[in-house]
Amino acid sequence: MSRAYNFCAGPATLPEAVLRQAQEEMLDWRGTGMSVMEMSHRSDDFVAIAEAAEQDLRQLAGISDDYAVLFMQGGASSQFSTIPLNLLGDKGSADYVNTGIWSKKAIAEASRYADVNVVASAEANGFTSIPDQAVWQTGADAAYLHYTPNETIGGLEFDFVPDSGDVPLVADMSSTMLSRPLDVSKFGLIYAGAQKNIGPSGLVVVIIRKDLLGKARRETPTMMNYQVIADNGSMYNTPATYSWYLAGLVFKWLKAQGGVEAMAKINDRKARKLYDFIDGNDFYANPIEPRFRSWMNVPFTLAEDALNSEFLKGADARGLLNLKGHRSVGGMRASIYNAMPEAGVDALIDYMAEFAEEQA
Amino acid sequence: MSRAYNFCAGPATLPEAVLRQAQEEMLDWRGTGMSVMEMSHRSDDFVAIAEAAEQDLRQLAGISDDYAVLFMQGGASSQFSTIPLNLLGDKGSADYVNTGIWSKKAIAEASRYADVNVVASAEANGFTSIPDQAVWQTGADAAYLHYTPNETIGGLEFDFVPDSGDVPLVADMSSTMLSRPLDVSKFGLIYAGAQKNIGPSGLVVVIIRKDLLGKARRETPTMMNYQVIADNGSMYNTPATYSWYLAGLVFKWLKAQGGVEAMAKINDRKARKLYDFIDGNDFYANPIEPRFRSWMNVPFTLAEDALNSEFLKGADARGLLNLKGHRSVGGMRASIYNAMPEAGVDALIDYMAEFAEEQA
Repeated sequence: MSRAYNFCAGPATLPEAVLRQAQEEMLDWRGTGMSVMEMSHRSDDFVAIAEAAEQDLRQLAGISDDYAVLFMQGGASSQFSTIPLNLLGDKGSADYVNTGIWSKKAIAEASRYADVNVVASAEANGFTSIPDQAVWQTGADAAYLHYTPNETIGGLEFDFVPDSGDVPLVADMSSTMLSRPLDVSKFGLIYAGAQKNIGPSGLVVVIIRKDLLGKARRETPTMMNYQVIADNGSMYNTPATYSWYLAGLVFKWLKAQGGVEAMAKINDRKARKLYDFIDGNDFYANPIEPRFRSWMNVPFTLAEDALNSEFLKGADARGLLNLKGHRSVGGMRASIYNAMPEAGVDALIDYMAEFAEEQA
Repeated sequence: MSRAYNFCAGPATLPEAVLRQAQEEMLDWRGTGMSVMEMSHRSDDFVAIAEAAEQDLRQLAGISDDYAVLFMQGGASSQFSTIPLNLLGDKGSADYVNTGIWSKKAIAEASRYADVNVVASAEANGFTSIPDQAVWQTGADAAYLHYTPNETIGGLEFDFVPDSGDVPLVADMSSTMLSRPLDVSKFGLIYAGAQKNIGPSGLVVVIIRKDLLGKARRETPTMMNYQVIADNGSMYNTPATYSWYLAGLVFKWLKAQGGVEAMAKINDRKARKLYDFIDGNDFYANPIEPRFRSWMNVPFTLAEDALNSEFLKGADARGLLNLKGHRSVGGMRASIYNAMPEAGVDALIDYMAEFAEEQA
């Protein structure tokens, strides 16, 4: 078939222009006679590719020189241990907000290294709303406050940045990074697995305020020590060079679209029209309190679960792929990251309308 | 230019046929309408790609069901800590052989978790020969014996597999894996960063005897716990899917070449003709004792260091790239992994002969 509309939550669809460029450059990057994936990471060519990617990301996300930008491996899941190992310092506890499955995973891993204080949990409301910060029970001496701005599975997204006072704020932005403007200066550390809004899997971007470097616990594996990675420009060992290059192509593409301000307008429009359609059609439902609905991951259910298979089959036939929801939530989920064209959302809505009508 | 001969030690050259297939499949893998790097790692298509890669590797390397094959991230450098964290069990010490820079890195990292007993060191002979196993001083209660079968930087390679008795034998095979047949049953654990003989960087293959699973220390990050990775088919979190796919293409290519037996013949011939030329020409030298010369990484010096730049410039002009030796060794290094065609070695020898003649 031609290119499908792929609504997978991650690894996710990439901009077609990025894939075309990667395709064109596969055997011979700019007359070097080799693919980027065959280049020494210490070569002038690759170092230039890597530095351009970092600079473009800094410009897109507004990252000042107070922060180091690291291109690491192991995904966000590795960060779940890397963060407490590096940031606890001489403190024994950390604050975590529980808003869904990814928060819980971060909490479980941190609990192996620290006393985790869950300052607030959305469990009581079935993970459909974010508890107001006024009722959060922050710890007395937390090393940091961790939260998950966008829950990829539940489709629950913060519409505010928590105020953590002097405590460093740490955020898993895997599925929201670069979807809209962000005030990085409010954060101590931001991390994002690449395979949603940045590039292929196997790369995780870490943005860390430089004063938080150098506090790693003695038992921290060297490859997880932020200071070591920062001191070596993310090349303490061979990094995931090809993923880094592709991330750089995505950043260039984002700049060409007008940056995160332009993406925010498009993403707002894409999400709004999909939620509006769901709310306006009795056949579909989304349980999340409207102000906390994710721009990136839109879960929805059909009036009858028994129709799920038929819905997915019809979607597949139209090239609307990977709409099945996570098993823990059920129903459907449409992930509509930066690289999902608005036409993909329109095609999905058309199909949803048609399917609902057939059942009426 | 057309495709160059890239002698980089890693990331290294890949088979042109593999890159062509990846190029062709970049935007639409077999009619799915998406790139492999856009596929859910849980999808039937990707799971089939991943399983085929594992099966092909098992067949190529002769890996029995007594072993788990893991596709991890973080490179061999992450394994330097992962290994002691997982294999020490209730023992406090491990045996290591020091044969060069990569052994030393493994030793330094392991020393952070264990009493490292260096059973033998090639330091006294300037890392030009492997100490005879008869003089190794093995520890009384070592959890495992670690060695580096091929030192990528020094060009020093074991021509035997050490006998470690009942102690699990652990080997960093990053730069020798799949270059020739191997009796896997002699090993407790084999690991190999992909970016030499397997695929792009960002992937490390671990082959572990199953009885060694389940011994991880309490503080082991979950993403470094072999048992967890094995139990989840290397998909505890999102793996480096595109690198895994490319490794699979390389395995298929190797099978099409006739497997590791056929590669061993070609690699032996490639290495032999390069060393024979070096030994037969007064202008060039390689310091390694002949029986321990690496098949994969051939360091050599010119009669005068002052000619190095000119040599490299002339090589570049002929499309013979990345011949500069590691700064710690100096001179030149030609890495001639599986994917380096014999014609590349011939072209290098022709150029070396010509260059030497010009200086005469």
